[in-house]
Amino acid sequence: MTKQELFDQIIKKQSFLCVGLDTDIKKIPEHLLDAEDPIYEFNKAIIDATAKYCVAYKPNLAFYEAAGLDGWLSFEKTVAYIKQRYPEIFLIADAKRGDIGNTSEMYARSFFDNLKMDAVTVAPYMGEDSIRPFLGQKGKWVILLALTSNKGSNDFQMIEDANGECLFEKVLKTSKEWATDEEMMYVVGATQDKLFSRVRKIVPNHFLLVPGIGAQGGSLEEVCKGGMNKTCGLLVNSSRAIIYAVSSEDFASIAAEEAHKVQLEMAEMLNNISKEDFPPSFVLFFLQ
Amino acid sequence: MTKQELFDQIIKKQSFLCVGLDTDIKKIPEHLLDAEDPIYEFNKAIIDATAKYCVAYKPNLAFYEAAGLDGWLSFEKTVAYIKQRYPEIFLIADAKRGDIGNTSEMYARSFFDNLKMDAVTVAPYMGEDSIRPFLGQKGKWVILLALTSNKGSNDFQMIEDANGECLFEKVLKTSKEWATDEEMMYVVGATQDKLFSRVRKIVPNHFLLVPGIGAQGGSLEEVCKGGMNKTCGLLVNSSRAIIYAVSSEDFASIAAEEAHKVQLEMAEMLNNISKEDFPPSFVLFFLQ
Repeated sequence: MTKQELFDQIIKKQSFLCVGLDTDIKKIPEHLLDAEDPIYEFNKAIIDATAKYCVAYKPNLAFYEAAGLDGWLSFEKTVAYIKQRYPEIFLIADAKRGDIGNTSEMYARSFFDNLKMDAVTVAPYMGEDSIRPFLGQKGKWVILLALTSNKGSNDFQMIEDANGECLFEKVLKTSKEWATDEEMMYVVGATQDKLFSRVRKIVPNHFLLVPGIGAQGGSLEEVCKGGMNKTCGLLVNSSRAIIYAVSSEDFASIAAEEAHKVQLEMAEMLNNISKEDFPPSFVLFFLQ
Repeated sequence: MTKQELFDQIIKKQSFLCVGLDTDIKKIPEHLLDAEDPIYEFNKAIIDATAKYCVAYKPNLAFYEAAGLDGWLSFEKTVAYIKQRYPEIFLIADAKRGDIGNTSEMYARSFFDNLKMDAVTVAPYMGEDSIRPFLGQKGKWVILLALTSNKGSNDFQMIEDANGECLFEKVLKTSKEWATDEEMMYVVGATQDKLFSRVRKIVPNHFLLVPGIGAQGGSLEEVCKGGMNKTCGLLVNSSRAIIYAVSSEDFASIAAEEAHKVQLEMAEMLNNISKEDFPPSFVLFFLQ
């Protein structure tokens, strides 16, 4: 999916919500455990209930790998289900991969060619040649970790060089030379709202994938104040606060309500983008 | 496997070789492609041929994931095969994972509890809470990326702070406070031989997992000069130079020859460890 197509979806749905499919067999409603593939059944119900309120899904690979072979099957079935039923959805493999070139090539093959995902999250520590194999396919994206939402982000990402520049800023500056904003996004945690202006100074036009609202405590309003640009520039993720809102039999409709609440807030935020800023294809969309 | 048990194996086999099982369906001998599970057949043959010359295997998860569900099955079967036939082998999941706490917990569950691996490689970028869930199980190891073997290691790992300390040194210094040398190792690329002394200044007693000899051009002798300590302290990995030495039907026996050559070099290097340094259990081993 291209940047323009993603922005069109955001305007159409009035949402820049990404729902994180961090599906844990220990947390899904009990009545599903008798199903042949409880994780897949749970995902299908969540997806059908929330698809109109979000523009992206982000299955977190760890949660599927933890269930071994069965987990991979659930993952592949979930991806195929989304692709078939909701082809307009932006699909992110939250994998945080990154390895020497020949290995990253295998990951790119896995996520882009075999699974047809739109994007994969990648860790920057190993540098350019670990990222390069994910680049160069039109409509396919690397989402590079820059400034994460967790406490441990202070351990290394905030280390300053002699000029007072932090590691996360170096990662942004260096990596934006490797790829345009048509194929690279960055992970910036919602809990880092005070640092969004420093991020935007370096990458004003890139999309940011923002985890950390909901269970991790980040504020959507603050994220938008600091991070929104004229093509929205944000995919804000919520996982636990939506998919585990309740554990009763009506979990899917409650998940829909939670997603809807976030979408309504997002619609308001999108009003802040000046209509004049909208690129032509958006105008065309409204003229249709 | 504990540190002592690993050292005992090294002395017994006179080897600190780790064979990387980076098995790519596109590179294995053609005559195997008719088998029901060619990747597993290839691995079994390589393992049976090389097990006496190495102390560790390191399947690289990317290579299995690239084949989707079938790949995971090959991976699980390979692990089970090693566990059953060669229980003395140290088993490393080369996964380079690392995510927020609840996600890293899922990875720990996957690799340690389900798959019974001894160790998993982890990327440091997200800091302490991304590593913590892998720690605290006796005989289970985190192998943290410190200084990798690829060209891209220069992009971020070599960034200096105001005191001239590089990021890889920060990673070593900070993370060695999180865990002892009984549960943490570090990845240090063989191509970084000039920097081994700086690594050893910070972590004199830790084991280092050293990729990069063979196809990537690192020298075993230089690695040993800079990195060996009194409990060896090295697991030196070779993947492509052993497993893809040839692509003919006798690939396994040629792989064995290549592994044997490396083992013989390693036996010489081990002579440099003073006998007086050997801890008691090694003496006991020789008295048996």
